Amino acid sequence: MSLLKTKLLSQIPDLKERVRNLGKNHGSKVVSEVTVEAILGGMRGIRSLICDTSEVGLDTGLIIRGIPILELTDKLPEDILWLMLTGELPTEAESKDLQADLQKRTDIPDYIWAMLKEFPKDAHPMNMLSGLVSALGNESKFKNEYFKGLKKDLYWDYTLEDSLDLIARIPVIAAAIYRVRFNKGDIIKADPSLDWGANFAHMLGVETEVESWYKLMRMYMVVHCDHESGNVSALTAHVVGSALSDVYFSLSAGLAGLAGPLHGLANQECLKFIIDTLDHFGKVPTDDELKAYAKDRLDRGLVIPGYGHAVLRVTDPRFTASIEYGRKLIPNDDRFVMVEKLFKIVPQLLIEQGKAKDPWPNVDAATGALLYHYGIKEFEYYTVIFSVSRALGICSQLVLSRAMGEPITRPKSVTTDWLEKAANKQ
Amino acid sequence: MSLLKTKLLSQIPDLKERVRNLGKNHGSKVVSEVTVEAILGGMRGIRSLICDTSEVGLDTGLIIRGIPILELTDKLPEDILWLMLTGELPTEAESKDLQADLQKRTDIPDYIWAMLKEFPKDAHPMNMLSGLVSALGNESKFKNEYFKGLKKDLYWDYTLEDSLDLIARIPVIAAAIYRVRFNKGDIIKADPSLDWGANFAHMLGVETEVESWYKLMRMYMVVHCDHESGNVSALTAHVVGSALSDVYFSLSAGLAGLAGPLHGLANQECLKFIIDTLDHFGKVPTDDELKAYAKDRLDRGLVIPGYGHAVLRVTDPRFTASIEYGRKLIPNDDRFVMVEKLFKIVPQLLIEQGKAKDPWPNVDAATGALLYHYGIKEFEYYTVIFSVSRALGICSQLVLSRAMGEPITRPKSVTTDWLEKAANKQ
Repeated sequence: MSLLKTKLLSQIPDLKERVRNLGKNHGSKVVSEVTVEAILGGMRGIRSLICDTSEVGLDTGLIIRGIPILELTDKLPEDILWLMLTGELPTEAESKDLQADLQKRTDIPDYIWAMLKEFPKDAHPMNMLSGLVSALGNESKFKNEYFKGLKKDLYWDYTLEDSLDLIARIPVIAAAIYRVRFNKGDIIKADPSLDWGANFAHMLGVETEVESWYKLMRMYMVVHCDHESGNVSALTAHVVGSALSDVYFSLSAGLAGLAGPLHGLANQECLKFIIDTLDHFGKVPTDDELKAYAKDRLDRGLVIPGYGHAVLRVTDPRFTASIEYGRKLIPNDDRFVMVEKLFKIVPQLLIEQGKAKDPWPNVDAATGALLYHYGIKEFEYYTVIFSVSRALGICSQLVLSRAMGEPITRPKSVTTDWLEKAANKQ
Repeated sequence: MSLLKTKLLSQIPDLKERVRNLGKNHGSKVVSEVTVEAILGGMRGIRSLICDTSEVGLDTGLIIRGIPILELTDKLPEDILWLMLTGELPTEAESKDLQADLQKRTDIPDYIWAMLKEFPKDAHPMNMLSGLVSALGNESKFKNEYFKGLKKDLYWDYTLEDSLDLIARIPVIAAAIYRVRFNKGDIIKADPSLDWGANFAHMLGVETEVESWYKLMRMYMVVHCDHESGNVSALTAHVVGSALSDVYFSLSAGLAGLAGPLHGLANQECLKFIIDTLDHFGKVPTDDELKAYAKDRLDRGLVIPGYGHAVLRVTDPRFTASIEYGRKLIPNDDRFVMVEKLFKIVPQLLIEQGKAKDPWPNVDAATGALLYHYGIKEFEYYTVIFSVSRALGICSQLVLSRAMGEPITRPKSVTTDWLEKAANKQ
């Protein structure tokens, strides 16, 4: 048995006991209220889900199992997967064991390769990824066992099996989509000597600054891996999984959400703004030039993509992580220099304008420029990279949800009529 | 412009105004509370969504725009689509206009046919359907316009376009899956002279009792079309759509949820029980024989599939609709006779046993037997038929959600730790 499964086996009884006690001793206690505004705002802020893998504080940003994301950026993505599932960072032996386990699971069935070739030439990479992950569900061990009659106590076990299979396979499929869709030449095979993040970087086929590219990809995979369970992709996967759909169905559905422009388009827009600005000046502008340019934009009611929109009241620590990596790896890259300059200039401008409750950058303000430097210039593909990372968190959440024995998700909807009447009565 | 679009154009300003007023005048009013139990129960019962297409009362079952479903079973599915979108039943001219519009939209691009052939021989039909709908998203008009820069006021318009395209196409794809996956011979082309429900029935390829089969399929499509927005498939599609993912992504994700055994497997289990019981007796048992058999099962702690599980406190009116159709169309079919007998016997037994809060049958207790009579004997396929029907409600909900301008869905998750602390403080 893998060390990960051994660990989880030792932890799950306690988790189940805690959930049981919560229900038994505190079931009727009220922990949140639903206002008309919250309903109109898309369930906004309604405390209604349990998620142990991570939490996002307004003043802290992403915290994974109690550890701020900035303290985790030098770890391997596999280690973060272990952390999300177990609440502890793995020992070196545990990390190696999980890495080796994933390396054995990268086989892709032939029908996926055949289907990949049938997508239209102009298909969006997210349609390709979501469609192929759904088709790959044919391999689900959970589904197979469920129909044979699986004990409820073992749901999490086969969900973990599927999760590890899918986490191992999704970089292979995602990289192949990149190669095929953007005419990059042959598909590059997985290298079983590489760790998970580096292997994905390897299969994309970047040929210069390889070690630094691997480092960047590991960091990218770590910082985007999870963000609680209320965001669109995690919530979607959770809801689908709650009907006991397998992990392939759940992740495919989550990716359909991630493909939405409100969820996954921001980093394209940030990078496009940087490139357009460089084009406008024909060089990297000086601080004064950039400040005047940005001020003019804001005065005309336009936004600076990546700034002033986030929920957080602080700089997104994932932005900080990205900028720290940029400083180490590509300090002289024009687009990265622009990222730095904008960070120096824009928050101050936004504060002066009194416009933004939150003048700070979110993660998208930096990551596009980093990917672009290494030659990943196809904006449409960026959400696919995000998706590979997010598979770690989504799968972890699904495993824990099955371990807890969470039931089917079923909130209540009301009609506009009902809401008007209920509101008017008060 | 189609009559449907004209109608919606005249209605949407009022809908938006109502939503605006709700926010402005009643935003902070509390309409629901969240207990620990509700969170552990999967958001159970938390009033947190707006849905105007339908409502499900515990004592009434499904009501579409104020009309009980039992009053709608003789309508065409197209008419119910119109009703869900506009709140009114269409005139004859409006009904014809919508029908003609759908008939023009059935073309399927070649890559879908090519991909269909590449699925493994043992693929689950729901993996095929969900994967192909996701791939078909390449045709989204909304996505195309969005990336060109679409005004927010027109989101609903292109969402309606996509919805009509997808509603017209999904029976074609679903029927092709049936023909290919179960070796039924060539794919049968759409017949542009048929209404939407009959056309689906036609493409499945049932060759006997054709008119009665068409009638059944229309009724099936009507009664399964919608069930509020808190159920797994509708909620999933809503969440995905809230990120402005197109209708193809949204429905594909919803279908991934529908594929979950807790959501879509019940009617297979009900029919299997009936067939097993007939096998056990080698004939249709007498009432007394069946009563003794069912009692024995219940005494041994087993359930009678389709009974005693539902949320409703009354017989599901969709069951009533199905049984009424059965009486008219196939009164002497052995499996249907069993449906009738179980309905006569089981609720009384459950009441006597004092076991069930709800002794009444749900819709699944009848529909499988009806499909089986007409030769659709592949249980795995039943959820696909359900999916075709549910596309009507899910798409209607998405159009109205865009018309209202609903924002991205973002409830809040909490950790088990947080929940324990919050509960212990009270």
